[in-house]
Formats: sequence, structure tokens, C-alpha cells
Amino acid sequence: MDKIFAYISQNQDSYIKRLAEVVAIPSVSGDAKHRQDVVRMGEWLVQEMTRLNVSTKIHHPGKQVLDGVELDLPPVVLGTYGTDPAKRTVLVYGHYDVQPALKSDGWTHDPFTLVEDEQGRLFGRGSTDDKAPIISWLWVIEAHQKLNIDLPVNIKMCFEGMEESGSEGLDDIIYKEAKDYFATVDCVCISDNYWLGTKKPCVTYGLRGISYFTLEISGPGRDLHSGVFGGTVHEPMTDLVYLMSKLVSPNGKILIPGIYDEVAPVTDDEHKLYTDLDFSVKDIHQAIDATNTIHENKQDILMHRWRFPTLSLHGIEGAFYGAGAKTVIPAKVIGKFSIRSVPNQKPETIKALVTSFIQQEFAKLNSKNKITITELSAGPAWVADVKHYNFRAASKAIETVFGITPDYTREGGSIPVTLTFQEALGKNVLLLPMGRADDGAHSINEKIDRSNYIEGIKLLTSYLHEISHAQ
Amino acid sequence: MDKIFAYISQNQDSYIKRLAEVVAIPSVSGDAKHRQDVVRMGEWLVQEMTRLNVSTKIHHPGKQVLDGVELDLPPVVLGTYGTDPAKRTVLVYGHYDVQPALKSDGWTHDPFTLVEDEQGRLFGRGSTDDKAPIISWLWVIEAHQKLNIDLPVNIKMCFEGMEESGSEGLDDIIYKEAKDYFATVDCVCISDNYWLGTKKPCVTYGLRGISYFTLEISGPGRDLHSGVFGGTVHEPMTDLVYLMSKLVSPNGKILIPGIYDEVAPVTDDEHKLYTDLDFSVKDIHQAIDATNTIHENKQDILMHRWRFPTLSLHGIEGAFYGAGAKTVIPAKVIGKFSIRSVPNQKPETIKALVTSFIQQEFAKLNSKNKITITELSAGPAWVADVKHYNFRAASKAIETVFGITPDYTREGGSIPVTLTFQEALGKNVLLLPMGRADDGAHSINEKIDRSNYIEGIKLLTSYLHEISHAQ
Repeated sequence: MDKIFAYISQNQDSYIKRLAEVVAIPSVSGDAKHRQDVVRMGEWLVQEMTRLNVSTKIHHPGKQVLDGVELDLPPVVLGTYGTDPAKRTVLVYGHYDVQPALKSDGWTHDPFTLVEDEQGRLFGRGSTDDKAPIISWLWVIEAHQKLNIDLPVNIKMCFEGMEESGSEGLDDIIYKEAKDYFATVDCVCISDNYWLGTKKPCVTYGLRGISYFTLEISGPGRDLHSGVFGGTVHEPMTDLVYLMSKLVSPNGKILIPGIYDEVAPVTDDEHKLYTDLDFSVKDIHQAIDATNTIHENKQDILMHRWRFPTLSLHGIEGAFYGAGAKTVIPAKVIGKFSIRSVPNQKPETIKALVTSFIQQEFAKLNSKNKITITELSAGPAWVADVKHYNFRAASKAIETVFGITPDYTREGGSIPVTLTFQEALGKNVLLLPMGRADDGAHSINEKIDRSNYIEGIKLLTSYLHEISHAQ
Repeated sequence: MDKIFAYISQNQDSYIKRLAEVVAIPSVSGDAKHRQDVVRMGEWLVQEMTRLNVSTKIHHPGKQVLDGVELDLPPVVLGTYGTDPAKRTVLVYGHYDVQPALKSDGWTHDPFTLVEDEQGRLFGRGSTDDKAPIISWLWVIEAHQKLNIDLPVNIKMCFEGMEESGSEGLDDIIYKEAKDYFATVDCVCISDNYWLGTKKPCVTYGLRGISYFTLEISGPGRDLHSGVFGGTVHEPMTDLVYLMSKLVSPNGKILIPGIYDEVAPVTDDEHKLYTDLDFSVKDIHQAIDATNTIHENKQDILMHRWRFPTLSLHGIEGAFYGAGAKTVIPAKVIGKFSIRSVPNQKPETIKALVTSFIQQEFAKLNSKNKITITELSAGPAWVADVKHYNFRAASKAIETVFGITPDYTREGGSIPVTLTFQEALGKNVLLLPMGRADDGAHSINEKIDRSNYIEGIKLLTSYLHEISHAQ
């Protein structure tokens, strides 16, 4: 292992050069103008995989309409490296598309030119999310080949180009290949999230689910002038704002009766898990660039982020949203809100509770308006079995590379593919982050630290070796 | 008078031809691309006024920025016809700009081509709002000249090209000319509104005021991801929706304590005024294209439109407003609402009550977010003295032309220039509508009925004659 680590350290500039190469491909999946760049990024991967003797299988998931244009979805690139039945097989997932980025958004440099500063921070769109992690898997293989060291596991790869745009088409492919291309997979590793803080590596074992609702109230046949009709009609906005105000209290408590009934109780063991985490109130204040947090200590903050459900009001479609003044009575307004769910909440129960509570509250209004409640999307929370060898291997690898016992963390958000892999394959899934909490994925000046990237390549190497013999 | 009426009836096709000519000028003040058309429409008026020996004075109110382009505001055209100190002087106001209109909005015909159907409805943008009324004043003068009949009053004219875009620049000109160009004015007549229904003419003596507020709540330094931060921060949307829900009940009652204290009580005389009005519940159902009215009878509906204050929630700036799902916690949201005020409510009192109530409610939340309440604009209600000869003249004119005693109506909306004339000149102001309630000003398929236009010219004629001797 020392030999490989030394090789990786010696070759770090070459890894950074190749990260610069992929950052320079603006593979923005959410912008029709960049679709060819996304495809080009997929081709870059296939070319590298082929050079490294990874056999590939390309899926074309079909078409989509974006910005009014019908486009081919970018390919899902599957790869196989090693088929030795005596070895364990690890499936690794990553995505090669990125969020949009414009210099004019406030970037210090051109977002598609990798720039390193004096502190060794490598700035560029996609640097941390998810280009460094995805190509690092390839550098692990390359290092073994250069040093003529046998890789003690088989690797299956699943690289997609639509993660930032809803992973359109991916689920079908995973389910289709579960008993075929992925049949031999023993465990799954996803490197597409971040350390909890900036100093201590972690492994991630849980994600919240999400149930997204729309609440539509309609009344008049068309938008009305508030001078002429104010006071004479049941205004949909009044009903909607009333109903939205009944859903969550300003201190974050969900007001829908029964919504907490299915939430798994906090155990004593779980309480202890939060004590040593590399996180402070200061970290969240820095992250939100403000101090308007509800809770006063690390444990409450993280529990409300990870293991308690929350409800956020996102906005209203159909009402006036521009600057200035407009005296409209909107005819139809659609409130948007979502509930982040946790074990053991079931989306069906959430939907039933939300729907019946809102219907009851609406009935009290005696409004002549019409109401429609829709569950736009729903996915349950995910928690992995941390006693699986997959987690022990990751934990051991972190100890080897960083000399520290990692934090065991969850995330407040959702990475739907995690649950898809767990459900479709029936195997243990692990999130093994490479970047830090302050990397600014999705923000301006996204970066990955040189040390996170280079030590990250070592981490993935060590993880694969640990997997080969972990009990 | 019979002679003039006969002349007007005989020449109706010529009036319609000239209405077609001005409808064909797309003088859309809200669209930078049409600014030259607005100017051209102003020039058309000056040319006609000059032809009829009306002396003109052109004001250029300055510049504005529209759609990112700096534009000259269209001219305010003043006119003087007659300066005989022995005659009364009537100031007439109208606007020569129009609302936007595209065939693709759903118009049956090209909006800028006047088309008459079998029922004598003249369709075209600006037909009723406000081109037929504005040019009718000119046809009154023309008819007198052709018939060599002396006009028994002096006329001052004030024609603007920015009414549909906030009358930018007009108020300053009115105040400036109050003691100069308008010094001799005895009373004011504005023909820029509509009958209450479709059958019975009316004179309008009141308008509601408006106080427009923004309620801004800000918290995080930037928009946050609801997965990562939901449950840990005071979300501005939650606070805002809570506060907006406290302002008005779904049955239209304003919930701000004290807001009704200054509202003038309904007198017995006033009650009687509503009995004979040409209006039914069916009319409002037709107008809103729905049946979600709060009140069950004509009197309650009209009182809540005209003489009780109302509060409408217009929308939210800064929140998610698009279609589909977005899991954002908006960092700063701005609620928009307005109160339509009535005599004797004062904007200062409304502002004080709104501000202190919202501040009190916000304090109860113990939120760490910040609140800012702003009064964007405010104008008081207007009610004219209906015992003035101006109203008697209009009423008599309607009896002469239509053989019916007119309805005395108010409007729920605001026409700010009305109050400006009253305040700047200190003279009685009257609204004398020409079109019908179903004309669809601001909508698709705007029209004026041939009979409303032609009888309208007679009405204005008769009104001016009545003014000359009304007591």
C-alpha cells in the first residue's frame, strides 16, 4: 500500500492536469446548449476506461424536451474491470454532468478553467461535484497497472450524465441491469457527497426522504383586478396563504397531526453518535452566511437536519412574483411545499396525513374556491446497516489514509440513486465523500482541495483493498 | 340640439372610420417597441385639434427607462377651445395610449384593425379605452362648426399617452398648470370608465383609494437547500406566510385591528342609492367567469366593491414561482398586498395600523429573521359632491339622450388623475362613462358598441350645453 500511496503522491500534478481537462468540458446537463458537452464528457470517460482495459457498455436512455428542444439524453456509461469470481465486486457510482455556472454569477475565475490558489484549493465547476471523485476511480486502476499490483476486487462502474437534472432515465437502467450486468455486485460505493465539516473525513449512512406537494386553489375564471373585484370574491391567494400557514410553525415544527407518529425514537446509542462529530454552530452560521438558526447546539442542529422530518414552503406558482406593484387577484395559485422524511416514515402515510389535514382545514373556510392537493414526487428516507463490512472497510481505509476514526454521518437531503441501488440490487450501499463541507457544490467558486483530491485517490485505493478482506 | 343630434347620427360612419384610423395606431405605452406609435397617436390628435382651431400646448414630461431602453415619455397634449370669460370652462381629460394586445392572446381579429360585427360591436384595442371617448370631444366641436352653432362653453383639454403605464410625468404638469393654463377651469369631466352594467348609463362620483405594501422577511445570507438546512434555520417563507395569513380572512374581512374605525358609516340615503342600480349577481358571475362570490345580493356586492375597504394578497417576490418542483429555502421573500381604502380612511392611519399590527405579530414568532414593511404607494379614496352643477348637467344630458335617469355609481378601483385634478384645481370632478361594463378594456376582444359611441358623442354635446346653464 505504501508503494501505491507514494506513486499517487508523486503523480499528483498529472491528476490535477487531468482534472483541469475535464473541468474544461462544460457538461451542464440542465442547459440544452451544453448537451453536446455532456456527451463529450461521457466520451472522454469511455476513452479513458478503454485505455485502462475497462470494458464498457453504453446505455442511451432516450429523449427529453429541454428549453423547448428535443434532445437525446446523455449516455449512462457502465464499466467492468475484473471478473474474477474469487474476488468481491464493488459497484461504484458517479456523475459526469455539472451544475450551470457563469462568470457573471460572481465567480472569481472562469468557472470552466481549473485554477489553484496558494492554499491548494482547486477552483472550477464540477471540481468536487462530481468530477474529481469520478475520475479518481480510474486513477486507482491506473496506479495498480503502472505498479503491476493486482487489484484485489472486481469493479463495476455506473457513470451518468443527468444527476444534476433529476437522473432522468437512470432508474430504469439500474433495475434492468440488476440481475444482469450488476448481478455479481457485492456492495455499492457512491462518492458524491461531502465531509460534515472541513477537517474530519466521514462515511455517510443515512439520507432523508422527500415528499413534494402542490396545493392548488382556483376560483375566478381569470385573473381579476383587485380594485374592481376585491371584497366581492373568495380570493384563492387568501385561502392558500391561510392553508400554508397551518402546515409548519415559524420554529420549524410541522403542524400536521400525526406526522411525527412514525418517526423512529432517538436511542441512547444514537445520542452518543453525535458527541464527537466534527461540527459546530459556527459551521452552520458560516454555511448559511447568517445566524438565524433555530437550535443552539450541535446535536439539536444535526438531529433536525438528519433524523427529524421538516417542512419547507418553497413558493407559489400563479401569483404575482415580480418586482414592484401589481394589483392582481390571481385566479389560480399553486403552493409548493415539501416534507423531508426520516425512518420510519412512509410516503403513503405522509401523503394521507397531509391530504386529509389540508382538506379539513379548507372545509372550515367555507370558501367557494376549488382545492387540489397533489403529491408531485415521493421517496422514502434511506439508512444503511453500518455493521456491514462495506462500512468497516471504508472506516479502516480512512484510518489508514488519515490516521483518524471517521465521523458517521447522515445527510439532510436526498440522493435518490442510493435507494435505487439498495432496492434494485439488495446490497449494502455506502456514501464515501471526498470533498469538504465548504466546497460549494452548486455555488459559485466551487472547489476541491488538492489534499482532498490526492488523499481521496488513496482513500478509494485503500477502501478497495479493505473490501477484499473485510469481515 | 335636435339639429346637432341629427347631424351626429347622419355622420356616424365617418366617426367610425376615424375611430378605425386611430385604433390602427398601436399606441401601446408599456412596450418600448411601440413608443413611436404612441408619439404618432399624439401627433394625430394635435393635427386634428389644429384643424378644428383648438390651440395646443405640448408638454414633454421627460424620459423613462423601459425594457432597458431610455425613451422620451410621450407628450401631454393640452388644448384650448374658446376663451370667452362669459362662458364656463370645462376641462376634459382622456388618454391616447392603450394596453398591449396580440392576436395570439386569443383575439378573434387583429386587435389593431377595427372590426364591426352584426350586433354593431366595434372590436379593437383602445376602441373603448380610451380612443372613442377622447376623439368624441373633437367631434362635438366639429359638429358645432359644421352647423355653425355656438358652443356655449370654453373647453380645456388634457390628453396623455402614459395612462396605461402609471401616468408618468402627468401630475407635475397638472400641478404646474393649475394656476396657469388651467386657471379658468370651472369643472372637470373624465370619460375613462364604464357603465355599471350593459343597459343603463351612469355618472360616477367615487373611487376607492389604494395603499400598496411590501412585507419583506430575510434570514439566511443566500438561498438554501431544503434538504441540508430544512429544520435548522428560521425560514423566511414560513414567517411571511404566517404574517400574510393574519391580514385578511378567507371571507374578505380585514383582520388588522382598527382598520374599519375611520370608514364612513352607511347612511339610510346611501342604502337607497343601491336599490335601482342596473346590476345583478349574474353580472358579476359573468364578469369573473365563475360563481365564487362572497355575497349573495346586489347591494352587498356593490358596497364591498365601492364603499368598504378590502385587502388583497397579490403574491410573493423572491420565492419559487415556476412550474414543477424546486427544493429551495428562499433567503429573502417579499409579500405584496394592498388595501383598497374608502372615505374617510386616511393613508397615514392605514400605514400606521398595518405596520404596528404586523410588527406585533412578528414579535410573537421569536424569529431571528429580519422584517421590513414598506408602503410602496398610497392614494386616498375620492368622492365627489354630487350636488354640484357638474353632476346635475351630466344627469340632465343622460336624460336628454337616453330618456332615463342615470345610475349614480362608484368604482372599486383607483384613477389617480381624478384626485389630482380635484386637489390641484380645487374644482368638482365628474366621471362620465361612454362604454359598457362588458367592453373588455384591458382584455382580449375589447369593443365599444356603435350605439354607445354615437350616442356618447351626443351625450358629451348635451353635457357641455347643460354645463353652460346648470345651477
